[in-house]
Amino acid sequence: MPNEAQTDFETTASSEKEAQLLRSLYADFESASLTPLWTQREGLMPMRPEPAAVPAVWRWSTLYPLAQRAGELVPVGRGGERRAIALRNPAIPDEPYATPTLWAAIQYLGPWEEAPSHRHTQTAFRFVIEGEGVWTNVEGDAIAMCRGDLLLTPSWHFHEHHNSTGQPMAWIDGLDIPLVKQLDAGFFEFGPDEMSTHATPARSRNEMLWGHPGLTPIGARAETRSTLAAYRWIHTDRALSEQLELELAGHPVTVEPGHAAVRYTDPASGADALRTIRTEFHRLRAGTVTRTSRTVGSSVWQVFDGEGTVTLGDRREVVTRGDLFAVPSWVPFTIEATSSFDAFRFSDEPVYEALGLARTDLQPRT
Amino acid sequence: MPNEAQTDFETTASSEKEAQLLRSLYADFESASLTPLWTQREGLMPMRPEPAAVPAVWRWSTLYPLAQRAGELVPVGRGGERRAIALRNPAIPDEPYATPTLWAAIQYLGPWEEAPSHRHTQTAFRFVIEGEGVWTNVEGDAIAMCRGDLLLTPSWHFHEHHNSTGQPMAWIDGLDIPLVKQLDAGFFEFGPDEMSTHATPARSRNEMLWGHPGLTPIGARAETRSTLAAYRWIHTDRALSEQLELELAGHPVTVEPGHAAVRYTDPASGADALRTIRTEFHRLRAGTVTRTSRTVGSSVWQVFDGEGTVTLGDRREVVTRGDLFAVPSWVPFTIEATSSFDAFRFSDEPVYEALGLARTDLQPRT
Amino acid sequence: MPNEAQTDFETTASSEKEAQLLRSLYADFESASLTPLWTQREGLMPMRPEPAAVPAVWRWSTLYPLAQRAGELVPVGRGGERRAIALRNPAIPDEPYATPTLWAAIQYLGPWEEAPSHRHTQTAFRFVIEGEGVWTNVEGDAIAMCRGDLLLTPSWHFHEHHNSTGQPMAWIDGLDIPLVKQLDAGFFEFGPDEMSTHATPARSRNEMLWGHPGLTPIGARAETRSTLAAYRWIHTDRALSEQLELELAGHPVTVEPGHAAVRYTDPASGADALRTIRTEFHRLRAGTVTRTSRTVGSSVWQVFDGEGTVTLGDRREVVTRGDLFAVPSWVPFTIEATSSFDAFRFSDEPVYEALGLARTDLQPRT
Amino acid sequence: MPNEAQTDFETTASSEKEAQLLRSLYADFESASLTPLWTQREGLMPMRPEPAAVPAVWRWSTLYPLAQRAGELVPVGRGGERRAIALRNPAIPDEPYATPTLWAAIQYLGPWEEAPSHRHTQTAFRFVIEGEGVWTNVEGDAIAMCRGDLLLTPSWHFHEHHNSTGQPMAWIDGLDIPLVKQLDAGFFEFGPDEMSTHATPARSRNEMLWGHPGLTPIGARAETRSTLAAYRWIHTDRALSEQLELELAGHPVTVEPGHAAVRYTDPASGADALRTIRTEFHRLRAGTVTRTSRTVGSSVWQVFDGEGTVTLGDRREVVTRGDLFAVPSWVPFTIEATSSFDAFRFSDEPVYEALGLARTDLQPRT
Repeated sequence: MPNEAQTDFETTASSEKEAQLLRSLYADFESASLTPLWTQREGLMPMRPEPAAVPAVWRWSTLYPLAQRAGELVPVGRGGERRAIALRNPAIPDEPYATPTLWAAIQYLGPWEEAPSHRHTQTAFRFVIEGEGVWTNVEGDAIAMCRGDLLLTPSWHFHEHHNSTGQPMAWIDGLDIPLVKQLDAGFFEFGPDEMSTHATPARSRNEMLWGHPGLTPIGARAETRSTLAAYRWIHTDRALSEQLELELAGHPVTVEPGHAAVRYTDPASGADALRTIRTEFHRLRAGTVTRTSRTVGSSVWQVFDGEGTVTLGDRREVVTRGDLFAVPSWVPFTIEATSSFDAFRFSDEPVYEALGLARTDLQPRT
Repeated sequence: MPNEAQTDFETTASSEKEAQLLRSLYADFESASLTPLWTQREGLMPMRPEPAAVPAVWRWSTLYPLAQRAGELVPVGRGGERRAIALRNPAIPDEPYATPTLWAAIQYLGPWEEAPSHRHTQTAFRFVIEGEGVWTNVEGDAIAMCRGDLLLTPSWHFHEHHNSTGQPMAWIDGLDIPLVKQLDAGFFEFGPDEMSTHATPARSRNEMLWGHPGLTPIGARAETRSTLAAYRWIHTDRALSEQLELELAGHPVTVEPGHAAVRYTDPASGADALRTIRTEFHRLRAGTVTRTSRTVGSSVWQVFDGEGTVTLGDRREVVTRGDLFAVPSWVPFTIEATSSFDAFRFSDEPVYEALGLARTDLQPRT
Repeated sequence: MPNEAQTDFETTASSEKEAQLLRSLYADFESASLTPLWTQREGLMPMRPEPAAVPAVWRWSTLYPLAQRAGELVPVGRGGERRAIALRNPAIPDEPYATPTLWAAIQYLGPWEEAPSHRHTQTAFRFVIEGEGVWTNVEGDAIAMCRGDLLLTPSWHFHEHHNSTGQPMAWIDGLDIPLVKQLDAGFFEFGPDEMSTHATPARSRNEMLWGHPGLTPIGARAETRSTLAAYRWIHTDRALSEQLELELAGHPVTVEPGHAAVRYTDPASGADALRTIRTEFHRLRAGTVTRTSRTVGSSVWQVFDGEGTVTLGDRREVVTRGDLFAVPSWVPFTIEATSSFDAFRFSDEPVYEALGLARTDLQPRT
Repeated sequence: MPNEAQTDFETTASSEKEAQLLRSLYADFESASLTPLWTQREGLMPMRPEPAAVPAVWRWSTLYPLAQRAGELVPVGRGGERRAIALRNPAIPDEPYATPTLWAAIQYLGPWEEAPSHRHTQTAFRFVIEGEGVWTNVEGDAIAMCRGDLLLTPSWHFHEHHNSTGQPMAWIDGLDIPLVKQLDAGFFEFGPDEMSTHATPARSRNEMLWGHPGLTPIGARAETRSTLAAYRWIHTDRALSEQLELELAGHPVTVEPGHAAVRYTDPASGADALRTIRTEFHRLRAGTVTRTSRTVGSSVWQVFDGEGTVTLGDRREVVTRGDLFAVPSWVPFTIEATSSFDAFRFSDEPVYEALGLARTDLQPRT
């Protein structure tokens, strides 16, 4: 459909005759389901990423009470399947997406509630900012969920949740729903109506098999990502503490001074724990300011502990425990840690790396 | 924003009091940039792909004359950069995309015209259905374009075209513009205003280095896909003929009886010639009917020679030389070859394979 | 040089004239540095592996006292470099090799002794059957050695050992010395005469960085195998216990009923911890009899705890704590566990897998 | 067994008492099948490769007449299987090996002769220096052999040869017999006594399927290396000519000035055509002197055309058409091309690359 560029172009037509021929040509394009590139090039192929999404912040102090109210009013069950409330990027029209590729939601399960079994090609994880008492059963393996834990639901794995306590619990779901939707690659299947198990073990089977550092079980095949489905806070916390301890002792093992970080990976391959979503945990010493960086692709962060100021392009925000924020593609991004600062991060970087589209620009320290 | 599902849900509220609480909750969601999953699940996560794109056909007999008219009226040059006319899927709103991931266009270059140098992270190729006389210079390597040839422009390679004859020429461009746009991964850069070369060699440098079957030049590093940038019709034609000849001699080397096919691959790795786009050529004996298949992801075909009937879901179309058609995700697809039938095909399958989302369903012969 | 086959062949010559011509031909072969295949084929290319090595057993009750005596009589230092005593396969002529590809030795370090720094392209590990008090410094990272631990020295890493106690300590060294010698690929370099460190930390740097299950440090690059250099008994023991526990609960996660096993792997890749040597730990319940298997390539086992009977071709031996035995290529091999039976195993299997020569024959249970 | 180093060591014993204790210790080592490292270290782990093999040259003018005489006197048939005469490195004791890992032989087939079917895990190829008329049938695919062609027999493929003319023919066989023998990985199996085919096609099936540059047959699976089994001289010659042509035009595409080279690779992967043997063809302009290099691992060259002088460590030799020479591990090596110089080369480099043991030292030009 003719846009401004075309209008300009018409104006430059040397004569009314030529303008008329052009109008006729564009009309014929339209009726033949054709669109000329020359009226669209800049929008289609910008000089650098111009994401529709904008930097966005969601406050835990807002999110959690709303999830509680939903817990009182909205049942969980077949159909809607989950009491999950999606973080919607204010600039993405019509779709409840945190970024153009990532879905983030707070999910809430009341006392003794259950969320029924289903599976989908969308990749998912849960990250727990507070609370406990829910087990997520992934292909029948009951996995406890506690503060600081990352729990995985790889593509096309049946999963269900059950709260085995009298307390409600909330956590963050991350999925690649927008990506899979754009790619028309989504399949969904309902599981049985009954829970596969009500077990509440402290330690899941996948942890018993794959949760030993550097030890691969010979008898158990690694059939799909990830072999390990639960990453416990005790390990994450220790890994970060030890990185900072080594840094203090003079070893250059951190991402940058005062900034420790781990990536959650599949022990069977060392690759990202999930195929389409990168998951990481970052710890900054109080006073650390990260180098400003721009990355192709988007990410969502959740503050786990402490307080900091994040700069997202032109926007500056103080964030604290539980707050989430989205970083769109190629937006300059910095964190300043007011206190010791712990944060969980997930992103779509594996997609770009797999397609040869990854690019990062790390700006020099000023 | 409340949709029909929600409205139903409200209706089932046990009391006006509860309905009011729900309305208040949804309003608070809205103002907090939140969207409940339970009102959206089916749209977001369908049981199987429900592509917005529809099967579509574009006729060469329509396309080429329109390109000619554009050739007379629209200059090529800085800004619009190319005289390319995109095939727009009738069901994709607002965007000139053949499918949700693929761009296809007819490009037209008049006598002695030149298209100036630029590069972009979008991956591109040209396929020639008829004509000759244009050279595409990829990073300064002049590559002749002739009927049946596939010419590559991998991501972030400078390229320009020059018509060195007094005859116009048209061809098909394929790109991953929609994919890169959705991923906010596009970078674009103008090259010098002058052509890097006006050479018109019959054989390009990349062919001289990499165009020998099974022979890798030791002194030349394979820095990027694809080492080989020109796939000549003489080789494609012979490869297909020899497959059918072997089939006649009793060797099961074809895709299915009467159906020979080759994939264009990078000699340095054996992988798809392009990172995000699969390119193939298919030849069917007269009378061959392919097995009906559904594939996640989309493809675009162009008939090179002969005539056939394609079935795309509920739609049946007779297609002949130069006609193009788009096959959306998971649409059942069959070709019946009326005569000996040659066709070029490109698709987004490498994307799905790289992300673990590939799925194909081959229906049994009836 | 003429062998028996050839002699037979000469006998069959139809005439004395022909025999004379043949003798003359063979003499001319000899003086031209040529050898006819037809007199050698069976020896060069047997129907199946005919290893020179034989099944062999070395008793800890013999080994350890001899190492002690060497500790009293032989100094450690420049030149010989290590007080290591190699297990020599009785059937390999002239060379101190446990198998045609593997070196195994007991190394002994007296109170307060030090073994100086060097590096070599040969890959090495240490496995500790008893004792403690020695630290092995690998590229300056001091790594404690305790019962049940596996410690790695990848190819071309500087390493040295120091005993920081008044007690002697002995352990098993495994290397690919025979393989590297046959391949003429050995390089060796002396390090500084002074220890790089006398530190005695309980936890080494590599463990602090890479010893957390499924957590990859983002700031530390994985430059070489293995990122993790110490595999502690506490983890190995727990992994094996949990496999057997899962088996009892009905999950098929063991190698075979009653037989748990782990492979030591590099957390950065999931591949074997060492490039040319596979390292594993096996645990059998009392009464378990393994299926008889034959594998191309050879292995060496050390009993860590318990007692069993091993069958190696025609040979049957009772083995107990500390005993070592070698399994040559394609020799049928079985273990019967008299008691609960723990054993460390190392083999050359990664070599065969990398070269496309791996083959295993698992015999049906009788 | 005590060697010179040990004797020295004994001499240094501080007393006769100690010397006696040492003698007793060594005797006990011996009877327990043990060998101390400190008497052996330098031999086992040299500072750099000290190959047993020496540089060696075999003259075509000697080889071919001896093969002819063998053709008159020695039948081909079951048992010996092939009339192949191995090039024996003069310094490798007892074994008919060109180098410690590579077997090279001239094979001779008289008029209308046949060599019966067998297969083995050893990898093999044939390279034709002169003559024609023999077809090698690999898994039933009849492949013509002509001057300049490389023909492959990957591991465990049945193969047989038949001379379909009244003229004898000779060629060079290359195999990894020494490597597979040292690794105890050899299996051998006789095929049927009758030829699978007597066909004499100009073009084999593997060429019809895989011999088109950059075109992968979609219907034919790449089951094993190599998909392509015949590399024809016409392609090799042209590839080398075009490299030199590009070099003249100012493009840095050769290995070094005046030195063009191609590696034979598997079109399905771009990797070496054979798993354990690298195969290459080199062309030097008259007057070219290659940079001196040392490489871990060994190679064998055969001059295809022209004349040159090779320097192998201290040895200098003029070599001409048909002459073969062996380059042991880490021996400095240079070629000076007296005339335009064409040579085929094969080596064991893929083995070292797969095991992390590859190392090359390219000396600066003087």
